[in-house]
Order: sequence, then structure tokens, then C-alpha cells
Amino acid sequence: MDLIYALDIVGTFVFAISGILTAANKRFDLFGGFVIAFITAVGGGSMRDMLIGATPVGWMQDLNYLIAIGCGASFGYLFQPYIYKLRRTMFLFDTIGIGLFTILGLTKTLDFGISPVIAVMMGTVSAVFGGVIRDTLCNVEPLIFRSEIYATACVAGAVLFLILRQTGLPYDYSVMSTVLFIIALRIVAVRYHWGLPEAGRTSNPSEES
Amino acid sequence: MDLIYALDIVGTFVFAISGILTAANKRFDLFGGFVIAFITAVGGGSMRDMLIGATPVGWMQDLNYLIAIGCGASFGYLFQPYIYKLRRTMFLFDTIGIGLFTILGLTKTLDFGISPVIAVMMGTVSAVFGGVIRDTLCNVEPLIFRSEIYATACVAGAVLFLILRQTGLPYDYSVMSTVLFIIALRIVAVRYHWGLPEAGRTSNPSEES
Amino acid sequence: MDLIYALDIVGTFVFAISGILTAANKRFDLFGGFVIAFITAVGGGSMRDMLIGATPVGWMQDLNYLIAIGCGASFGYLFQPYIYKLRRTMFLFDTIGIGLFTILGLTKTLDFGISPVIAVMMGTVSAVFGGVIRDTLCNVEPLIFRSEIYATACVAGAVLFLILRQTGLPYDYSVMSTVLFIIALRIVAVRYHWGLPEAGRTSNPSEES
Repeated sequence: MDLIYALDIVGTFVFAISGILTAANKRFDLFGGFVIAFITAVGGGSMRDMLIGATPVGWMQDLNYLIAIGCGASFGYLFQPYIYKLRRTMFLFDTIGIGLFTILGLTKTLDFGISPVIAVMMGTVSAVFGGVIRDTLCNVEPLIFRSEIYATACVAGAVLFLILRQTGLPYDYSVMSTVLFIIALRIVAVRYHWGLPEAGRTSNPSEES
Repeated sequence: MDLIYALDIVGTFVFAISGILTAANKRFDLFGGFVIAFITAVGGGSMRDMLIGATPVGWMQDLNYLIAIGCGASFGYLFQPYIYKLRRTMFLFDTIGIGLFTILGLTKTLDFGISPVIAVMMGTVSAVFGGVIRDTLCNVEPLIFRSEIYATACVAGAVLFLILRQTGLPYDYSVMSTVLFIIALRIVAVRYHWGLPEAGRTSNPSEES
Repeated sequence: MDLIYALDIVGTFVFAISGILTAANKRFDLFGGFVIAFITAVGGGSMRDMLIGATPVGWMQDLNYLIAIGCGASFGYLFQPYIYKLRRTMFLFDTIGIGLFTILGLTKTLDFGISPVIAVMMGTVSAVFGGVIRDTLCNVEPLIFRSEIYATACVAGAVLFLILRQTGLPYDYSVMSTVLFIIALRIVAVRYHWGLPEAGRTSNPSEES
């Protein structure tokens, strides 16, 4: 489990960076930036834990998450100009992050005796909801509702992980395969501009412009 | 209880339609549309359950809700142009939905030993909060804060239901009367442009334009 | 404890006023105004209680909070023009409110056996999160992310309170000292335009305008 724990911490660290960068774009002050970093990193897991009744929520019981967030936000603040050049590295870490958060959320939900279908959803919530709250608090329209295949990759990964678990593959291999699958899916999706069709089918008589 | 369960599922179905239509107006992709449909349908009940401590939240324990949402969102996606012509039918189902959600929320809260005043509020939360989150995530100002008597009808209906319960009327009759009352109230309110006064009394020196 | 309970009720009352005034500026109707007043007053404590698993959340177990909110919102509605002239008084009460909410949130979290670092955060959440939800629902960018030292004062106060508790000072004195410290900090911060640096360090290539 050590490897997975380490990757979970890395995911938290990367999500904190993405949080403070969004806040910086909105010209929030430093405190606001750290708050947004924090919410981006723990928002998804907290929502999952509150929904399934796993309270106090996970990050309250292990201060390493807080430390990872502090480091991530500081790193994001100090190295902003460089990070913009490191887009690919960030993209990779972010994808590792959502892959792991998906699996951890899925597993925790199953541990609470909840059905696999719901567990797939809660895995996805763990991965993407922090970003949704980040965008909502920053008064930005949540990216995931319009961008390339992002949450969809989590759903696909979660389903794959469930199948692999059935095959009796060791836990670590299942995790690795799932994360690699999610990474591959996102890279391919971005390269070939994969996307889902719009929810609106016609130029409908919209209620707002 | 069969009738009430059936109506609850219908309410969920209708809320999912309203969710995907809002997302379509904002040009979200199909995944985003289903997410918004889902949140609109279960947001109110989930908020209630988290506040009163009824976790895991209700919809996690009965997959029929998920199925109803899937059907509602698909229906909304496939028949968009027709639905705009079916405004009245939608209005009716939506009102049935909020009526039932109000009663179910009220009853569940009372079952947790919480006072009737709070139960009336939680009934209303169950009915309207999904729509509030839908509007917030879509970056639209929540409709209910400015529209005709919507949440107010839930409050009035909840109070009526509490009174009917005291009279010893059978449960099904109380439910029916309450839902019919809420429907009548909304129809009359819309027809005669009933509305509450604004919260602002004067042309105050507003802090934003 | 009587004094603290009374001040808690006063804090709730003042937060309700600030809620209805924000709603009035957005031209919500009266119902929406009361809802926003309510959410502003209980949002922070509810979020804390849901995160630490203290459900049903606190205000459901003592109707005096509802009464305080009803009075605060009515007061805010009726005396709007005068309140704009009472900015200083409001500022004072609001600061007392966040000071007390910080301490109450901190204490409650510690009572749940959660670490002091998290308790400081939950104290701050109790104090400021109601305002964040208020601003988000009103589609206003949350003030606290850009304004003078607001949440930071809560954090500082919470840390001071923890230290004072260690010294064995009687509870009431610790509370008083902390609240006075937070008030002093905010007054000095406003007067001398203290603020934190922006989260963005350079005129970065922002992703939106």
C-alpha cells in the first residue's frame, strides 16, 4: 500500500498547485489562494465522505494531506512562471492524481457496503469534484462540463478497475493498470480532440443568451 | 406506499429532465448534461440527508433512482424540441415533484426525531435545493430567489401536511391533498402573477451594479 | 457559559442581517432574502458539523438560532436605510460574530477528538463559510478571497485561543481575550489597509481576462 499512499500524496500536492494557479488568475490574495488550493485538493474526497457517512472526513485523520497541500500551494506560488512552461508535466501529474483519487474513492465506497454502480460514481466524484468547487468559488464555469474527456476517463477507469479486481490480479497491478489506462485515454483524447457531443441538440430557443 | 414511491420516481425523472435542459442551454457536453440532471434530481435530498445525518444518503440505497435519472436525462436529450412545446405538462410534473419531495423530506426529518419547524424547512430543502445547485453550477443566478411563489408553496404545503397528519386522515389522502394544494397554489400564483415583495425596500446604494 | 451562548445568538442575528442585505442588493424577493440570511448564519457551522460528523447539525437542536435569524432578517429588511449609516456598529457586531463562531467551532471540533491544527481550520470555516456560500449563491465573487485580513484574523484568533487554553486561564477570559484580539486585528488591518499579497506573482499569461 506504501506506493499507493505515496501517489495519493502526490495527487494531493498536484491538485493544490492547480488550485493556487486558478486563484492567482482571479487575483485572489495569498490566503484565498491557499484556501482554493486546499478545497481543490480535498473537496472531492470530502464530498464523497459526507455522502457515504464516513465522517470525520479522511483528511482530518492524517496531517500529511495538509502538509502536501501546503507544499503544493507554496510550490505553485513560488514557481508560477515555470509551471506555465511545465504544462505537460502538470498534465501528467494531474492525470495520475485523478486516476488514483478515482480508485481510492471507489474502494472506500465499496468498503461501506454500497453497490458498485454508486462506487464508480463516488470514485469519479472524489476525482473531479474538488475542481468543480474550485471553479464555482472562483466564479468560473466548471471546466469539466465542457472540456475534453475528463470525468469520462474516471468513469471508464473505475469500471476497468472493478473488472480487474474480479480477475484476482494483485491490488497494486490493478491500480497501476487503471492509472496507466486513464493516462493513455486522456492523452489520446487530447491529441485527437475527442469529445462528447453537446447536451443541446438543436439551436434551441435558449432562455438566456 | 406504492403510489407514493411511484410518484417519487416520477418526480426524480422530471427533475432530471429540467437539469439536462438547463445544461443544454449552457452548451455543456453530454456528460456534463447528465451530471447536472443527476445533481438536480438528488441534490435536495442529499443535502437534507447530510444535514440530518441520514448517511449513506437515500439514493445510494435504491438504484431505481439512478435509473429514473438516466431515463429522464435521455428523454430530455432526445425530445428537447418537443419539450419546449410541452411547457404545461412539464410544469405540472415539476410541481408534483416538488410537492412529493417536500412531503418525503418532511417525513424523513420527523423520523429522525427533529422538531416540526425544522422538518418543514428540510422538506422545502429537499424540494428546491437540487435546482439551486443546478443553477449555481451552471453559473446562473438561482431562479427560486426571484421567481413566482415556488419555495413558498413548499413551505405552505409542508405546514398543511403537518396539520392534516394531526387530524388522523389516512397518509395517502394527506399526501394527495398536499400535492393538489401545492399545484393549485402554483397555478393560481402564476396566473395572477403573485409574487413576494423584493428584499430591497429602497433603491439602496448598492455595492455592485 | 450563558454569556457565550448569548453572544453566539447575537452573532447569528448579525450574520442574518448581512445575508438579507446582500440579497437585497441582488433584488431577490423576500423569501430569497430570508433564505440567504439563514444560509449566511448557519452555513459555516453546518459545513463544520457535516465534515466532522456532528449530525444532525447544531442549529437543528435549538430553535433559538432560527428565532435569532428571523429577527435579524426582519430587522435588516425593516431598517435597511439606517443600517447603511450604521456601518461601524455592523462591523463591530460582525467581528464579534466571527470571533465567537471561530472559538465555538474550534472547541466543538476538539471535542470530537480531532487534532488542534484541523480544529483551527474548522473554527475558521465556522466563521467565514456562511459568507462564502452567501456570495456564491448570489453569484458574487466571495469577498473573503480578496478583502482585508478577514479569515486570517480568525486563524490568528484561533491559535491565540489554543495557547490561552494551555495557560489555564478561565474559559470566559480566554474567549473574551480572543474576541477582543480579533476585533483589534481587524480594526488595525482596515485602518492601515493591511492586506496579504496577491496569489498571482507576475502578470501571468492568464487563461481568462
